[in-house]
Amino acid sequence: MSSRRYDTVSFLSDFGQGSDSVGIVKSILRDLAPEVVVIDIAHDIAPFDVRAASLALARAVPYLPEGIIITSVDPGAGGDRRIVAVEIAGGAGIVIGPDNGLIATGVALAGGADRAVVLDREEHHLASPGATFAARDVMAPVAAALCGGAELFSVGTEIDAASLLPSVVPIPREENGGLACEIIWVDRFGNLQLNVSVDDLSDVWGKAPDRVRVSWADNVRNLRITTSFSDLGAGALGLVVDSTGLLSLSLDRASAARELGIGEGEGVLITPSDEQGVTVPVSLRA
Amino acid sequence: MSSRRYDTVSFLSDFGQGSDSVGIVKSILRDLAPEVVVIDIAHDIAPFDVRAASLALARAVPYLPEGIIITSVDPGAGGDRRIVAVEIAGGAGIVIGPDNGLIATGVALAGGADRAVVLDREEHHLASPGATFAARDVMAPVAAALCGGAELFSVGTEIDAASLLPSVVPIPREENGGLACEIIWVDRFGNLQLNVSVDDLSDVWGKAPDRVRVSWADNVRNLRITTSFSDLGAGALGLVVDSTGLLSLSLDRASAARELGIGEGEGVLITPSDEQGVTVPVSLRA
Amino acid sequence: MSSRRYDTVSFLSDFGQGSDSVGIVKSILRDLAPEVVVIDIAHDIAPFDVRAASLALARAVPYLPEGIIITSVDPGAGGDRRIVAVEIAGGAGIVIGPDNGLIATGVALAGGADRAVVLDREEHHLASPGATFAARDVMAPVAAALCGGAELFSVGTEIDAASLLPSVVPIPREENGGLACEIIWVDRFGNLQLNVSVDDLSDVWGKAPDRVRVSWADNVRNLRITTSFSDLGAGALGLVVDSTGLLSLSLDRASAARELGIGEGEGVLITPSDEQGVTVPVSLRA
Repeated sequence: MSSRRYDTVSFLSDFGQGSDSVGIVKSILRDLAPEVVVIDIAHDIAPFDVRAASLALARAVPYLPEGIIITSVDPGAGGDRRIVAVEIAGGAGIVIGPDNGLIATGVALAGGADRAVVLDREEHHLASPGATFAARDVMAPVAAALCGGAELFSVGTEIDAASLLPSVVPIPREENGGLACEIIWVDRFGNLQLNVSVDDLSDVWGKAPDRVRVSWADNVRNLRITTSFSDLGAGALGLVVDSTGLLSLSLDRASAARELGIGEGEGVLITPSDEQGVTVPVSLRA
Repeated sequence: MSSRRYDTVSFLSDFGQGSDSVGIVKSILRDLAPEVVVIDIAHDIAPFDVRAASLALARAVPYLPEGIIITSVDPGAGGDRRIVAVEIAGGAGIVIGPDNGLIATGVALAGGADRAVVLDREEHHLASPGATFAARDVMAPVAAALCGGAELFSVGTEIDAASLLPSVVPIPREENGGLACEIIWVDRFGNLQLNVSVDDLSDVWGKAPDRVRVSWADNVRNLRITTSFSDLGAGALGLVVDSTGLLSLSLDRASAARELGIGEGEGVLITPSDEQGVTVPVSLRA
Repeated sequence: MSSRRYDTVSFLSDFGQGSDSVGIVKSILRDLAPEVVVIDIAHDIAPFDVRAASLALARAVPYLPEGIIITSVDPGAGGDRRIVAVEIAGGAGIVIGPDNGLIATGVALAGGADRAVVLDREEHHLASPGATFAARDVMAPVAAALCGGAELFSVGTEIDAASLLPSVVPIPREENGGLACEIIWVDRFGNLQLNVSVDDLSDVWGKAPDRVRVSWADNVRNLRITTSFSDLGAGALGLVVDSTGLLSLSLDRASAARELGIGEGEGVLITPSDEQGVTVPVSLRA
């Protein structure tokens, strides 16, 4: 049976950009599928951080070109977790990775899984000189085969897409008249992204607020919601609708993470604010 | 009107190599301009460091292939600074970036701006879930359009190139019979690059010296000028004419930055030396 | 004389991924050899660490596509060390780099050197504005020339391959009834790779052991040898046959480097174990 061909492989891992693990995967793709272009989604995911990888994939999915997507953040490497391939978007893409929750959010954003297989056909794998390095020995050669037109069911055995592990990304929950959120990402500029959008707030309160009360640990702040960093004004903490549409605790041209001393996983409660409140500038550290 | 086409996009940012922000921009280019090759100039610029980005661009400009150059170090993201496109070298290149001084030195090295536009034609931009990511929503799709042959004036409104913000790179100035310089770059090997060349010294003193007096903070050194690190000899600090033609405070096979404990922004005064001076080896830290 | 052409350049350096030094080399290749694809082997080698580069090259060599390989970790930059090009695998590859031992292990793994030249034909080099930046001024333009079909002897003068500096990677030696090994690589996940394989152990003791006694500094451990991290069990230190076939001191889903507080260069003695030994979990630090 003839099948769709692909000419792009997008690649996400926790190998560290600049590491030879990334280089080896690309070398194999260049060797087995010379016409294919590889796009690095990200490789600076902290080691074993499946959730961070899941979020990076979710940010990228709306922009990825048609093709194969290799995702390798695999704390269970060499164990009995499955390596799977999941077809999405009517065949426009196939996501390959360990079945550990990494791909769930990305797959859902792309409209859900069409078909799925476990990559158990060893004739498509590379022999390893030692322990299996799944991105090198399984994912890269299978991606090359799929790019060349191999049918999905020829590289693995069909599985029920409903059996794939669910997302590891937390969702906000209503609590004490507010939304209990969490900081899910600190970007390179120190913005503290929450797992909540303005739409989530208006779903709860019936309208989109301009200003909310934000609490974490022993802190309570009355903060504006803006659509750009510069609208915050120098030194003023606020909530910015960031480039993904989620709310970030941010400062203009400074790191909110460094200033507030908090990071990923911190719980943040958002409740309505009736105050107009004077903005109190944070005294920035030198 | 038909226009020139381009097949390379060079890309400079402070997103961090390995971050998904870089990956997303490349994904968009792959999607909208599949034949185009992307060359990463650098992404390890410190967050918001416009001057460091400006210097990296200046080092790369003499070697860049024909094409579009995306530059994104943008402390004013989402604010009212302009995103511009500047044609250089008779149309061989178009530099896209925020108008914050980043591109000025690179444009000057390429012979100056030919034509310039502000990127205000929203039909060439991507709809955004949030407002703050110009490289993704504006620069990448406009670069793709220009690669495909779109005319410069079709992607923005013409502006006077003289209105672009000037360079943020300092130039040395004559002071007390010497040249007051500044450390403008510390490379990965700890070399401390000054904003001065041997030609600058001979312009002031009428001839190129072999040896100069170098002062910073409470330190005064009588240093040789050489054209290679190994000419310095083990443990001896000197001024090396580096690979860009500027003078660097350097040690052979060791980090001058770590040894001297100074870095970017440090002021350094260079004055003539009449001594032949015995070279005193630095006692290297373990 | 017509010659073989190449369409891939693999590239290894200590420039740091994301640095403009990498970008400049790629720009030159794009300019001089537009059809060529560049694969980054690795750029995160510690500055001047020839041995680490040598090991990264050795890990990658079995997977590299046909083509030119640029290797630039060059503590003697600008000195009198030679820049060489070494043909391997019957002409399938040509390795370019400083003659400082970096390439020796990789060349040996590829079957040894066929022909070798020193890159002394300056008509193939780029003029430099300052000190020679060999990857930019020599290696990149020569790689482009070789990709375009230039004959090896047209870019340099033939040298005896036996004159190339030998490998800088240590090999284990028999000592006191055991094998004196060394930690040669700490990967991003904290696995401590030794310069020894199971085959090396069976060569000494006549059979491959399941368990060995491992000593370093004041520590002695009786450790299992497994073929996957998950076989170790939570918190148990062991020796894993890693993805390159060498033995690594490892923990499952945790960093052995952080836990044990040791790193590259640490000497490790492996001796036979007759015990079956109860596995004592390490008390993991918080």
